[in-house]
Amino acid sequence: MALKTNKPLILLTNDDGYSALGLQKAIELMKPYGEILVVAPVVAMSGMSHAITINTPLRADLVRKEQGVTVYKVNGTPVDCVKLAISQLTDTLPDLLISGINHGSNSAISVLYSGTMGAAIEGSLNGMPSIGLSLDDHSPNADFSVTVKHSVPIVEHVLKNGLPKFTALNVNFPVCTEEEFKGIQVCRQTQGLWDEEFVKRKDPFGKDYYWMTGTFCNHEPNELHTDMWAVDNNYAGVVPVTPDFTNYEAINDLKKIQNN
Amino acid sequence: MALKTNKPLILLTNDDGYSALGLQKAIELMKPYGEILVVAPVVAMSGMSHAITINTPLRADLVRKEQGVTVYKVNGTPVDCVKLAISQLTDTLPDLLISGINHGSNSAISVLYSGTMGAAIEGSLNGMPSIGLSLDDHSPNADFSVTVKHSVPIVEHVLKNGLPKFTALNVNFPVCTEEEFKGIQVCRQTQGLWDEEFVKRKDPFGKDYYWMTGTFCNHEPNELHTDMWAVDNNYAGVVPVTPDFTNYEAINDLKKIQNN
Repeated sequence: MALKTNKPLILLTNDDGYSALGLQKAIELMKPYGEILVVAPVVAMSGMSHAITINTPLRADLVRKEQGVTVYKVNGTPVDCVKLAISQLTDTLPDLLISGINHGSNSAISVLYSGTMGAAIEGSLNGMPSIGLSLDDHSPNADFSVTVKHSVPIVEHVLKNGLPKFTALNVNFPVCTEEEFKGIQVCRQTQGLWDEEFVKRKDPFGKDYYWMTGTFCNHEPNELHTDMWAVDNNYAGVVPVTPDFTNYEAINDLKKIQNN
Repeated sequence: MALKTNKPLILLTNDDGYSALGLQKAIELMKPYGEILVVAPVVAMSGMSHAITINTPLRADLVRKEQGVTVYKVNGTPVDCVKLAISQLTDTLPDLLISGINHGSNSAISVLYSGTMGAAIEGSLNGMPSIGLSLDDHSPNADFSVTVKHSVPIVEHVLKNGLPKFTALNVNFPVCTEEEFKGIQVCRQTQGLWDEEFVKRKDPFGKDYYWMTGTFCNHEPNELHTDMWAVDNNYAGVVPVTPDFTNYEAINDLKKIQNN
């Protein structure tokens, strides 16, 4: 089913599933700007990172099509949704991709685990200006009003100016009131790690099983212009992200293992 | 079940599953260097990137324990395996993590999709010197002899010298004979993308479904010192990788969207 329109085409996805409140809020945010195509996972896909589905087939089921909003649900990951959308569900490359609004922060190293940011990065690799929007609140009934309002200048900037090649925005909003909100800070990714703990239990048959839990440890809590600092201080943190994993500084040192 | 030993403890995992040939070859490669703890997925997990299992519990089943080699299979992703191993299956942080040997290349942007490299990067974040080893051959019966032989100096270098903080090695071997193999090249990640195509079919009930396929497009095929160039020219490409996604060059340009 192909969409063709003269209005900008906006692709929406997320990792909380097609029925999540944050995605509905993203539809409300983006509807004034163009035709909306939602292609989102059937079920919650938090923590799916940049995973793709290789060995099983995908399905895209139309959920609804009305008033400039077309919604598909896909039995795959957020990255699958982006790939399938641009390959099969529209004839034209969307003008913008919005992933979110995520229920929970994707600051710091969470960008690596995040399905929301997986989809945004995949969008940027496919030539679409792409923005991941997240609110630092995991509640299914989170209040997205400050996030929606202050995403407007970010979205309008990107619609007008685009983004650098292969670069997406990782935008994280704090939980605060309109009065408390201080504005937007363009940042770098905070250094810090998740410290995992596993809760070990026995099933009714005496066998061990483990639930993953964890707490984030910020290695530079007082560093300005990092995305965790921004959110902790009631700013929206905006980090331009690109998936070049090379540690350039380490290359020279490692030349010792070159045996030629 | 805790392991304690005075010999170096080597953690092995992969994304092809605990019974894959490449993992058996990694055990043979590493056995001379210490006690081996294998914690690997039950099933193939290619393309799982840095995905973690949040909403369902994990299990670690002992497969065998013999002659310095202990093998667990886990019903999760490669990254789950690393987290669970160091949290629950050993009392001491392993001295080295080897992920692989993968059946298939993880050069260029494949580092982003790769479960093998997800595990290696997770190892580096947890303070273990970590190496992802891959052979550019998807065959379940691939010939790993050149890869095993020429991984030795890489492994010995890392065991002796460690690696920079939060940095893993992405090592990719070419398919070639011992005579054709040219040596090791320390490289950066090649620029290029997967161009996806989906094969669209109808199921027996008339409903569409899609198989993801794709071809890699190298954007800089003639650039020396890139990992694809290395493998294409019968070198092993070694890229030091670290998960800082920040596009530092883009930060200044984006300051325009800061409204304060």
